This record gives sequence, structure tokens and C-alpha cells, in this order.
Amino acid sequence: MKSREDQISIAVDAMGGDYAPVNVVAGACEAIVESAGRFHLVLVGPEDTIRAALRDYGRHSGASAPPPDSYSIAHAPEVIDMHDLPTAALKTKRKSSISVGLYLQKEGDVQAFVSAGNTGAVLSAATLILGRIHGIGRPTIGALVPTAKSPCLLVDAGANVDCRPQHLLEFAVMGSIYVSALRDLKRPRVGLLSIGEEDTKGNEATLAALKLLRKSNLNFVGNVEGGDILSGDIDVVVCDGFAGNILLKFGESIPHFLKTKFKAFAEVSITNKVVGLMVRNALRKVMKDMDYQEYGGVPLLGVNGVAIIGHGKSTPRAIKNMVYRAEEMVLKTVNRNIQESLTSVNE
Amino acid sequence: MKSREDQISIAVDAMGGDYAPVNVVAGACEAIVESAGRFHLVLVGPEDTIRAALRDYGRHSGASAPPPDSYSIAHAPEVIDMHDLPTAALKTKRKSSISVGLYLQKEGDVQAFVSAGNTGAVLSAATLILGRIHGIGRPTIGALVPTAKSPCLLVDAGANVDCRPQHLLEFAVMGSIYVSALRDLKRPRVGLLSIGEEDTKGNEATLAALKLLRKSNLNFVGNVEGGDILSGDIDVVVCDGFAGNILLKFGESIPHFLKTKFKAFAEVSITNKVVGLMVRNALRKVMKDMDYQEYGGVPLLGVNGVAIIGHGKSTPRAIKNMVYRAEEMVLKTVNRNIQESLTSVNE
Repeated sequence: MKSREDQISIAVDAMGGDYAPVNVVAGACEAIVESAGRFHLVLVGPEDTIRAALRDYGRHSGASAPPPDSYSIAHAPEVIDMHDLPTAALKTKRKSSISVGLYLQKEGDVQAFVSAGNTGAVLSAATLILGRIHGIGRPTIGALVPTAKSPCLLVDAGANVDCRPQHLLEFAVMGSIYVSALRDLKRPRVGLLSIGEEDTKGNEATLAALKLLRKSNLNFVGNVEGGDILSGDIDVVVCDGFAGNILLKFGESIPHFLKTKFKAFAEVSITNKVVGLMVRNALRKVMKDMDYQEYGGVPLLGVNGVAIIGHGKSTPRAIKNMVYRAEEMVLKTVNRNIQESLTSVNE
Repeated sequence: MKSREDQISIAVDAMGGDYAPVNVVAGACEAIVESAGRFHLVLVGPEDTIRAALRDYGRHSGASAPPPDSYSIAHAPEVIDMHDLPTAALKTKRKSSISVGLYLQKEGDVQAFVSAGNTGAVLSAATLILGRIHGIGRPTIGALVPTAKSPCLLVDAGANVDCRPQHLLEFAVMGSIYVSALRDLKRPRVGLLSIGEEDTKGNEATLAALKLLRKSNLNFVGNVEGGDILSGDIDVVVCDGFAGNILLKFGESIPHFLKTKFKAFAEVSITNKVVGLMVRNALRKVMKDMDYQEYGGVPLLGVNGVAIIGHGKSTPRAIKNMVYRAEEMVLKTVNRNIQESLTSVNE
């Protein structure tokens, strides 16, 4: 496999996610066809399994198969699954699709890596294999939260539990630059998640981080509260991974909670049943608006390379969009911008 | 004013809340009439203001006024408002309704205090005037969160931002005993808010708190995640006030967010408009289920006495229910139970 000078090459973890390799192969093929060969994809995983999935895709989808020179296969006989403990798995499964895919990037054969697999394993492997951007203490993963307007990047979303003030500043810088690239925003509004708008409100870490952020060159709006996120008035909300994870999982549980509540409502009378049905349909349409597949996945920010991480339940459409996210990260030189911004922030 | 041996006396902050004294006086009168004189209420505030509010209530409500011996007035000429900084206000306004009401309890004239006023001021004043229960490091305030089943007590809800593991254990003990009294549950299920169910997941404080909780005699179910709260399967969810506050404010912003989303949905077409209207009505009915007024307020747990804190926007019904909560705390000897449980936990 060679890197092509005029074309971006992206490695795709064919074994990542609950519906791998079927959804991954389908999404990769869709990306190639839709983009008319704008990039070259390297499918990483056990070769036989990938070839079988490609054959099945061609047979069942009815879609035109991608031209043979638009993709290649990198053999990786081992698979890290969702239940593997990240650091242990990286040691025992040295030829996993995650490790092989990231080494392809390390060696310059590809410029990016995409995986819907074990998030912790991708995070650990990418930090280990690609290394960190100079000046970054902790690589981070954000999450795009639907709001009344454009989605808001909540960063960190769970990768770093206990954070020092400097880490929160780094998350803010990386989040701001990423959102700027993703949404073509000049100066995304960055807020620090806290328990009150006043500069005196917060915990030890946020109070110290607030001072660092006030001195930065970011478009920093100050402390924001839990109730400000869904307004869509803040583009990047910075927090430690403990608060971020709790908030995200709470948010993800709301649609099911509403469904339960409306189901109980529908059971009261025939009229309620009819209304309940309409509500369910309206709710579904409204929720579709907030579909994670639209973005596909989020980048691991702060590593010396590009790694896009997706949902375990990624559909082909989500995988396709992850490939586009990877391309975007490369074309918009997100990492170089982070590096430059860090230098000016720390000066 | 005397304490009556056969009757509970409860001081009510007539000046607490955005709609004081009108809503407070109305709620207090409703409580007296509805309970048929089960307790004696002491309305605390500027005497003239309270007398005027009582006259207005009698004139406008059409409800029968409470018998004159069912209540009394304790004059407090000063008012701490929502914008006052708690500790400063307690120093400069020594004759506030909050301080006077709590001193009545300290001196044994009443057994409980109820306020919909400045939460921080009530917390500070109660800790200062009533003192803490022996063995409690940090008094706490929980919040009742609506779930698919019974409401869940999230504790701490914002009073204590940075917490040591021992504080989280104390919150668990106090929360469990309070929920046990409130809902007549033998052994409420207590969970520790974290970022994964496994005992290895969490931040420094929760990992250490988990060990303390595993050794306690509580009905401790282990770590719970943000997505577990709304299921209603956990009765008490323990966290520091930073996570608690963020989660609560996020949760409170959801109804408005949904309204915005459904409004946009309704604007798409005439059909959507009709459906949108029905959805709004259904949503309102479903949300009513989760009405905070039902509980009125929550106790300040860990102080050597009873203080019930309510929402700034408390309605008369909410105030009435806060009085019932205060009575319940006294009758069910919640503080004595906390004291006893702490002794056994710490042994």
C-alpha cells in the first residue's frame, strides 16, 4: 500500500462497533462512491472477513461497488471488542485493527484513522502510537450535544476524569479550534461549565481554570451553567470528563424517559391514545433533528494525528460521515492550528 | 409566644420568595385550615406587612380565615432578598425574618422553620444558629428529581461544591433517612453518581467514597450513571454539589428546550400546527406530573433542627406542602435517626 500524493488516505477500522464489519464496510463504500473517489480508504481487519463483507455488500445493497483502486485492505488478524480493557488489550492483541490502523498513520501510509470500536482502546492506542501534540497534557474527546440552535461541543466528554486547570484550558483551545473547522465559525463562543455565572462560583479546578481562560485569546464568555447548554448560545462548553460524562448520559436517557411518560399518558383514555400516537410521531421527527449520525463521530483531540471515534451502534451513514470528519480534520489542518494556538496561549 | 406542649409550632418566613408575603401568607392559611389546626404557625416578618397580607388574603380569597389562636406573628423588621450575599447579609441584617425565625427554633419556641427565600442565607444561618448534628461535617440540601417512577433525591444539589469522600458518605446517610421518612420506605436504594457501574470507575473522591459506602449499612447499590437517574430505580443518588447543580439545572432547562423544538416543528405546516398544539397540551399534562409544588420544598439536612427550603417562585400550594414537610421531619424524628445511623456507620 502506498500513500498517494494527490489524495488523502484514511484507514477505517473494519472491526469497530457493534455492527462491524457489515456497517463499516457499507459506510466506507458509500463514502467512496458519494465523494467520487476524493480519498483512498484502507479497510483494516482480518482480510477474509473484510472480503466476505465486501462481497455481501455488493450482493445485497444493489449499490454500485466502489472501484477496486479506491480502497485497499490492511490485514489485522486480531479484534479488540467493547468489553476488552483498553491497556490490557493493547498489550495482548498487538495486531488488532486499532493498532494496525494507527501504525499505518504513524508510518505515513494514511493521514487519518476512523473507528466505531472501543473508545478507551482507541484513545490509549492513539496516544501511545501517534503521541501527543507538543504542549498538550491530556488528549480529549468531546461530544456534540443537540441544542435549540447548532450543536454544542461538550469537552471533555469522559476521557479525563480528574482534571487540573491547565487541562481545562487545553480542552477549551482544542474544542474551539475544532468547532471553528467543523462549523466554519471564526471565533466560537467558549464557556466554562460551573454552578453560577459569577467569577466567584465554581469548584477549585474551575475557579483556577477561569483565570487561565480569562487571559487566553479565546472568545471566552465566562462561566456557564447546566441550564445554558441547550440554548445553543455557547459553541464549546468546557468541563472535566466526570461532569461531561454524567451530563451526556443523563441527556441520552431523556428520550426514553419521555417515551415512558407519554406511554402512561396514552393509557389514560382513547383520546389520549390518539394524541399519544401523534406526539410519538412528532417527537420522533423532532429527535431526528438531533441525530448523531449527521456528524458521525468526534475527533480525539490532542494526539499527533487524526483519529475519529464513533458510536458503537454506528450505522453506515454514521461511518460515512466519520470518514468526512477525518478528511475535514486533515484538510483544515486542525492539529497545526491547535499547536499554533497553544503556543500563543502559553506565551 | 409560647410553645404548646401538645402541638407542633412551625415558624414560616413570611418574606421568603419572589411572591412574598402574598403567597406565603396564603399557603400558611391554607395549611392551618386544611390540617384543622394540627399545628401552630408563627409568621415571621415585618408585623405591619404581615397583618396587611392577612387582611388582603381574607378579603380576596373568599376562603375562611384561620382562627386567631392558630397562628401568631413574630416581628422581624429586616428582609434578606434573593440578591443578598448570604454571609454578608446575615451580619448586616441581624433582625431578618430568616435569623429571627431560626432563633425562635434555637430557643425552643418552635420546632421547625420554613422559607422560600435566599437558599444560601438559610443554609448559612441555620448552620450558624442551630449548629450541626454531631458527626456531620457538612449540612446538605438535596433535590427531588422526577423520574419514570417515584422522585429520586439527588444529594447534594449545590450546597457543597468540593467534597471529601466522608462528606459523600454523610450525604448518603442523611438522604437515605430522609427519603425513608418522606416515602415510608424501609431501605431506600442508594447509588453513587459516577461514570460507570464498575467499582473501578469514578474520580478520586467517588472512588474513595465507594469504599466507605460499601462498608456502610445502607442499601447501597454501587455506582450509578447519569443515565440511570430518570429510570426511578434508585431512590437516593449521591454526588458533590458541583455535579448535582449542573445536572439539576440541565434537567430544568429541558422543558423549555422541548417547547422550542416543538414550536419549530409546528411552524412547518398547518397539520404540524394542529399536532403541535396537541403535543403542547399533552406535554403540559405530563410535566404536571413532575410538579415540584407537590413536595413544596426540601429539608436542609445535617443541622440541629428542622429547616425546609423552597423554590423562590413558590405558590401557596408549595408553601402549604413545605409546612407539611416540616411537620413530617419533626414527627418522624429524622434528625434523631440521622444521629443514630451516623453512630453505627462510623463505628
